[in-house]
Amino acid sequence: MLLNSRKRNLLISVLVGVMIWFLPPPEGVDLNGWKLFAIFVGTIATVVLDALPMGAGTLLGLTVAVCTKTMPFKEAFSGYVSEVTWLVLIAFFIAHGFIQTGLGKRIAYWIVALVGKRTVGLAYGLSFADLLLAPAIPSVTARAGGVVFPIAQSLAYTFQSRAEDGTARRIGAYLIMVAFHGTVITSAMFLTAMAANPLAAKLAGQAGVQITWGNWALAALVPGLLSLAVMPWVIMWAYPPELKATPHAVEHARRELHAMGPMSRAEKLMAVGFVGLLALWIFGPLVKIDATTTALLGLAFLLVTDVLSWQDLLKQHNAWETFIWFGALIALADGLNKFGLAAWFGNWAAALLGGTHWGVAVLGLFLIYFYVHYFFASSTAHVGALYLPFLLVGIKLGAPPLMTALAFAFASNLFGGLTHYGCGPAPILYGAGFVSLKDWWRVGFIMSVVNIVIWLTAGVAWWAWLGY
Amino acid sequence: MLLNSRKRNLLISVLVGVMIWFLPPPEGVDLNGWKLFAIFVGTIATVVLDALPMGAGTLLGLTVAVCTKTMPFKEAFSGYVSEVTWLVLIAFFIAHGFIQTGLGKRIAYWIVALVGKRTVGLAYGLSFADLLLAPAIPSVTARAGGVVFPIAQSLAYTFQSRAEDGTARRIGAYLIMVAFHGTVITSAMFLTAMAANPLAAKLAGQAGVQITWGNWALAALVPGLLSLAVMPWVIMWAYPPELKATPHAVEHARRELHAMGPMSRAEKLMAVGFVGLLALWIFGPLVKIDATTTALLGLAFLLVTDVLSWQDLLKQHNAWETFIWFGALIALADGLNKFGLAAWFGNWAAALLGGTHWGVAVLGLFLIYFYVHYFFASSTAHVGALYLPFLLVGIKLGAPPLMTALAFAFASNLFGGLTHYGCGPAPILYGAGFVSLKDWWRVGFIMSVVNIVIWLTAGVAWWAWLGY
Repeated sequence: MLLNSRKRNLLISVLVGVMIWFLPPPEGVDLNGWKLFAIFVGTIATVVLDALPMGAGTLLGLTVAVCTKTMPFKEAFSGYVSEVTWLVLIAFFIAHGFIQTGLGKRIAYWIVALVGKRTVGLAYGLSFADLLLAPAIPSVTARAGGVVFPIAQSLAYTFQSRAEDGTARRIGAYLIMVAFHGTVITSAMFLTAMAANPLAAKLAGQAGVQITWGNWALAALVPGLLSLAVMPWVIMWAYPPELKATPHAVEHARRELHAMGPMSRAEKLMAVGFVGLLALWIFGPLVKIDATTTALLGLAFLLVTDVLSWQDLLKQHNAWETFIWFGALIALADGLNKFGLAAWFGNWAAALLGGTHWGVAVLGLFLIYFYVHYFFASSTAHVGALYLPFLLVGIKLGAPPLMTALAFAFASNLFGGLTHYGCGPAPILYGAGFVSLKDWWRVGFIMSVVNIVIWLTAGVAWWAWLGY
Repeated sequence: MLLNSRKRNLLISVLVGVMIWFLPPPEGVDLNGWKLFAIFVGTIATVVLDALPMGAGTLLGLTVAVCTKTMPFKEAFSGYVSEVTWLVLIAFFIAHGFIQTGLGKRIAYWIVALVGKRTVGLAYGLSFADLLLAPAIPSVTARAGGVVFPIAQSLAYTFQSRAEDGTARRIGAYLIMVAFHGTVITSAMFLTAMAANPLAAKLAGQAGVQITWGNWALAALVPGLLSLAVMPWVIMWAYPPELKATPHAVEHARRELHAMGPMSRAEKLMAVGFVGLLALWIFGPLVKIDATTTALLGLAFLLVTDVLSWQDLLKQHNAWETFIWFGALIALADGLNKFGLAAWFGNWAAALLGGTHWGVAVLGLFLIYFYVHYFFASSTAHVGALYLPFLLVGIKLGAPPLMTALAFAFASNLFGGLTHYGCGPAPILYGAGFVSLKDWWRVGFIMSVVNIVIWLTAGVAWWAWLGY
């Protein structure tokens, strides 16, 4: 029987998993941990090879984990009781409200009227909005998913670029990519721009390095702005939109804004909800209300005021699909961590680079720390598992403590750009369906190289000049 | 500003919740437990009053629970890591496979070809088809709405009986009524025949009673078959069709079967999956594979063989809607239980009925539990709210635990026949337009009396003989 390519890829994924399953686990790794690693790699293989739709493939991974009793049911499905999974789902719903009410369109036209002469101008507009909010919204998932994503999507729609009808590459795919890599960079620029950043700072403290809001922001200023400046052009080259100049867009946007007239009741309520969300995302920590609770409140407000129709939300298939696969990957990756695979890996890396000069060793550690993120479904899990061991090895080898601590902290944000599951905004922006998996990973890899070069050259020079 | 009826009902629900919130908690009830009770009653009120779609209303309940810090997030959303919730979701998916592949239709036609010579035979044929599918299709809505209903309707059309041209009473109205009350009875006969049945079993477990697939089916066998045997005749008397003999039904079914041709590849695979599921649902416990794991395996099989398309499953909005509200209600009901509220209610009701003989008291409880369903739009909401407290009272009064747990579980299905909104199949079958509202309620009440008499006489005798 001939297999079609999807079936062949499914077979390959299963074989890869089975092969790892039967290899002897490395010393210090629990047998169940190793089995879970085999399941994780097999699952990621179905995803990367597009052997099954992501929701189906990742559920299959959970099914194998449960059936083989590698993980109990409650642990395998623990991703669906994780705050970030629900934040991702609700971000899709909020974005739908932006589109549905026309508020997204209005904001999009404002931006186009302001900076819409060229596609790159739009890219800078998006990044600037993100940068402005970054110090204040510590949940990058909320910021990118709840604010930047709806605007990027609305911008795409403004230029008749949609995910579903073959017009994605017109401009939407580019804008989504820019929004994603923009948020990856802005989250690296402030201690308060990403949930795991304070964790990194705390762990650095345990290594005797004091990271403050101020020294973080100062250190990130030059490489961060440089990355933000270069990024739209790099993506323009690596993943060009069909529409590069939009000479009539400004005029068109002004005309459309005029034609839209005053805000409708639903649009006003959406604006109120949006401002409320922004306010609670910024000031919530003061009253101990986290990002997901804020999103739940926002959703409740939009449902009760009939701005959102629940029946409509049930039809947001991308939202449900993303909810399923993201929850599954989080649980699998968490499981690897719990089984001590990350700790084993840290020791292995330290042993590997033990004899070399500290410069070479730290560079090696940095690259390993960065690219092992292909195996993580959360920045927080990665930081929690590997930040401290890698930093300690670096310091032990003679690297400057503050600079090294900051470099690993920045990497802890920048590696989020590698995959479509590596950080909170990724599943949302990828899930919108504008960008193919292949392009997502390809551009992600290119941007990782660009970011590493910028942060390790201009960045290191800047930190040296600062005396770090 | 005038409020529409949904908004008015939402206001009523909120007021009910707020009122309870500010009442002093009864003695022995923790303040947080009482607050959760207020949230729970408010949430159930939105459901019963149809103030919001169920998914939206129940998520609102969770939001209030999280925001008021009555429950931590992980606890409020714990229903989404519950096996039962996932079983329900996957059951919808598997049911979709039955309908999609035509296997359900074929099975039903086989039976009609066998027993369709008279109207009553046709009625038995429909009920038998339903009975055959009942153990394997845990969504009574999918089973009755997607398999039995299309057959009942096309049979009616065969006899020139239509809803819209005054010929409904010829035979169609009778068949629709039989299909409805048949499914109400078959759903009572198997743990896996209705979405709320596993919930009842789970709640019974919290009361220390172990309900299994096997002891459920065994207990329901005699009263269930008796109800199924009597029901077509009761409806024949209470709501007679004009046409009592149907000599062409057998031929029609054979023609349809012939027209369907041989089984397609998808249908064959679905049959294999169906047999596998049945086998594992029945024999799984012997090899320590539970119902949800079985369902996960079945789903994986159907997805990998392309019998089910994941994209199609994402569009099963009823499935996602049910997943959301079911998970939410489970978590709230679990929370009440953890806070000791059910136990307190049991004590309160026990004190109320303390003087009477347990037989009288339990009969009273049973009737109240049954007929209060006029105020519910969902069996699951009813079970979630009242099953456990009523069961606890019964047990406390000295009733045999297993018998009582099963009796209330059976009632949780049988009360679905009372109204045109009381369970999932009702709006579909009523909405076909064959039966007037008055007749629907009248026949519903008559059937409720018949069912109660059968299950509480022949049923109780059978359970006593079984030693329950």
